[in-house]
Amino acid sequence: MLENVNVVLVCTSHPGNIGAVARAMKTMGLSRLTLVSPSDYPSDVAETRASGATDVLADAKVVGTLAEALADCSVVIGASARSRHIPWPLMNPRQAGEKVQEAIAAGNRVALVFGRERTGLTNEELAQCHVHVNIPANPDYASLNLAAAVQVIAYEVRMSHLAAADKLQHAGDGQWGVSWDHPLATQLELNGFFQHLEETLVEIDFLDPNNPKQLMPRLRRLFQRAAPDKIEVNILRGILTMVRANRRKE
Amino acid sequence: MLENVNVVLVCTSHPGNIGAVARAMKTMGLSRLTLVSPSDYPSDVAETRASGATDVLADAKVVGTLAEALADCSVVIGASARSRHIPWPLMNPRQAGEKVQEAIAAGNRVALVFGRERTGLTNEELAQCHVHVNIPANPDYASLNLAAAVQVIAYEVRMSHLAAADKLQHAGDGQWGVSWDHPLATQLELNGFFQHLEETLVEIDFLDPNNPKQLMPRLRRLFQRAAPDKIEVNILRGILTMVRANRRKE
Repeated sequence: MLENVNVVLVCTSHPGNIGAVARAMKTMGLSRLTLVSPSDYPSDVAETRASGATDVLADAKVVGTLAEALADCSVVIGASARSRHIPWPLMNPRQAGEKVQEAIAAGNRVALVFGRERTGLTNEELAQCHVHVNIPANPDYASLNLAAAVQVIAYEVRMSHLAAADKLQHAGDGQWGVSWDHPLATQLELNGFFQHLEETLVEIDFLDPNNPKQLMPRLRRLFQRAAPDKIEVNILRGILTMVRANRRKE
Repeated sequence: MLENVNVVLVCTSHPGNIGAVARAMKTMGLSRLTLVSPSDYPSDVAETRASGATDVLADAKVVGTLAEALADCSVVIGASARSRHIPWPLMNPRQAGEKVQEAIAAGNRVALVFGRERTGLTNEELAQCHVHVNIPANPDYASLNLAAAVQVIAYEVRMSHLAAADKLQHAGDGQWGVSWDHPLATQLELNGFFQHLEETLVEIDFLDPNNPKQLMPRLRRLFQRAAPDKIEVNILRGILTMVRANRRKE
């Protein structure tokens, strides 16, 4: 479905930026690139900067006008540095990613439009966009280069796309976002460990059973936060056993 | 608070990448950079690529070991391309951004650790990280350059930071994420427009009042989706008035 997402670069000056955009697109699974009146293209510099994404460049369409680039798209989102004369629907990149996913899921073609390196899109070009997207950059230094802006928006498109396909891995899926290699310890096993720990701490005179303070609750909180697996609990108990065995030898 | 976020680059080969990272950081409001054994630094190439972010380079610390870079940090998040021998807590960039915000809100220092251009972080270095973060890239081409990876993670840090400060603009705040220039039309005004529209459509024989089908509901749905403001409704009614005035002249 991501093949329905079209990245449109308007009047790019530096071919190296076109190559870097191709690379950024491909890392996020986007493949359709349209160049509106690029200054210096095709170009070896673009090929070099594209690194392993020269296929995106090879398939790129070059057209004369933005209108031509957008002709078959139903949703047009233009990158804007904000503050235009007429207020326009404005999204942050996350919302734009969601909007793209919604559109492509319904079989529509989407265009993501990026303007010139220094001056962005003209007001007339921005008026052709249904929605504007603004990357909430540092107001004192909002100078993302072209490929960086494409990277961020394409990343959000991919995040929404993976989430929709339920393929976005979260910490908390499985153990901490990975397939853990061993099952977690049960509460019974953890309690066995805590009892073992407490006895050991008493035995080594670290814990005064007549004045235990908050030591054990604090240790419980610590280990429970880590959600140990069965092997880890075995390791910890092995350590305690050895601590006690050593002490008995004295 | 973002000054408590430290970007740590381990054994970077190309000084241009260090400059590009400084630029990516600054666009997202990050300023602290630590370089662990960079290959070729300081460097004019780094300065050039940093563009307006040379202040980040000027303040960068250069250290000999990762341990030294991490010494004063309480939360350490390492960028990883996944699939390590021992599973490790793994987050996506969004979750990592949330974790960073949570940590700095509590006054803790955070390190975001990025490895070598080609080979990333070693297993030993990854083991020094509390959590790993993985950018869910295209499995067929996961080759984000160093600055692109920093851009994505720093963007998520900024998004979480702005959201926590309630400074993240959403479409739907105000009208469509911007301060709209005119108040929206009321339902009464909209209904006045729809009635005007219906009468006009009948008058020009576009709508058959004896067989209206779903025409008016469809038009209502369309205009209501756009949530017109008062000026826009006035414009639309002005058009209808002119349509009818012209018809009467025939």
